[in-house]
Amino acid sequence: MKLSARNVLKGKVVSVEKGTTTAHVKIEIANGQTVTSSITNESVDALGLTVGAEAYAVIKSSDVIIAVD
Amino acid sequence: MKLSARNVLKGKVVSVEKGTTTAHVKIEIANGQTVTSSITNESVDALGLTVGAEAYAVIKSSDVIIAVD
Amino acid sequence: MKLSARNVLKGKVVSVEKGTTTAHVKIEIANGQTVTSSITNESVDALGLTVGAEAYAVIKSSDVIIAVD
Amino acid sequence: MKLSARNVLKGKVVSVEKGTTTAHVKIEIANGQTVTSSITNESVDALGLTVGAEAYAVIKSSDVIIAVD
Amino acid sequence: MKLSARNVLKGKVVSVEKGTTTAHVKIEIANGQTVTSSITNESVDALGLTVGAEAYAVIKSSDVIIAVD
Amino acid sequence: MKLSARNVLKGKVVSVEKGTTTAHVKIEIANGQTVTSSITNESVDALGLTVGAEAYAVIKSSDVIIAVD
Repeated sequence: MKLSARNVLKGKVVSVEKGTTTAHVKIEIANGQTVTSSITNESVDALGLTVGAEAYAVIKSSDVIIAVD
Repeated sequence: MKLSARNVLKGKVVSVEKGTTTAHVKIEIANGQTVTSSITNESVDALGLTVGAEAYAVIKSSDVIIAVD
Repeated sequence: MKLSARNVLKGKVVSVEKGTTTAHVKIEIANGQTVTSSITNESVDALGLTVGAEAYAVIKSSDVIIAVD
Repeated sequence: MKLSARNVLKGKVVSVEKGTTTAHVKIEIANGQTVTSSITNESVDALGLTVGAEAYAVIKSSDVIIAVD
Repeated sequence: MKLSARNVLKGKVVSVEKGTTTAHVKIEIANGQTVTSSITNESVDALGLTVGAEAYAVIKSSDVIIAVD
Repeated sequence: MKLSARNVLKGKVVSVEKGTTTAHVKIEIANGQTVTSSITNESVDALGLTVGAEAYAVIKSSDVIIAVD
């Protein structure tokens, strides 16, 4: 499957924290930086996300804000 | 200024393409991966974004989708 | 590739309108309803989107607002 | 009220699951496809959402990703 | 029509700038603060948005980032 | 830090409600209108958000829907 989303960052799951309905998943991308994602618990189960698994952080370019110092 | 957004990825601007109202800016983050952002032309001017400038890609965790192969 | 996004609606591309940097693509999903997407021209080219092609509209559940009459 | 959001999909609420602060609501749209929405518990109460109620899934076109096989 | 979106800010349209496909609309909310919106040209036409018109800026709470100095 | 996000509304925190993973924070902006934000509990702690604190609601223009009566 190919996606229109311009940002597909490959990494490894480093933490999965489930709440009552919403989970937070952290993915370490190649340079040691970590990306945090907030998804449904249902998705965590459907994708079988566990610490150590390979995964991608997918981000639509219209959701990326730019900042400068 | 501190942000609630959990993802603030530092990098360098590698391209700025202005459209009629909307611009696309690419930032190379540390590991050679590039993040594409779609922002207003007005923001490009307000931030003085040019190729080579240091910048951050800021992404709210609720905007990050996870994918697995 | 499996996605955490809970909404993956299958359909057929019924129009592709490119702007200077941003394109609008309409996908007719099974019941005659049409979903409009705003993506980069770059994505239209990368996915080879043309009228008549099969495609999916992918939507994160945190981006869905509910309305009632 | 008329909305700029290009996607207003009519359907029927098929499930409402409240978490501690965030709820997940599923709406079956006309062709049997289901759309999942993540909203605040506060909104569930304000709209009186219950299973069987008519409702709309409202999605801004900039939040729709396109995928192809 | 009632919306799950928690933020519905009433104001007056102070500018409408159409691009090739995407328009930028500014709404002055009650205290002189201006909210900028990026929507499709199609929506500008469908809503008949012109300077001086009353309008609402509708924002889902999951799209609001918090910042502190 | 300067942001590409066109909407930075200054206000005061009037409520902080933590869930299991996700918190809802309300900010009263200058004209008495309140903006609700849904962020991670982690962000509430990182920013030290408490009732009465000065804060900004930051919103990307592509996340603002326009509505008219």
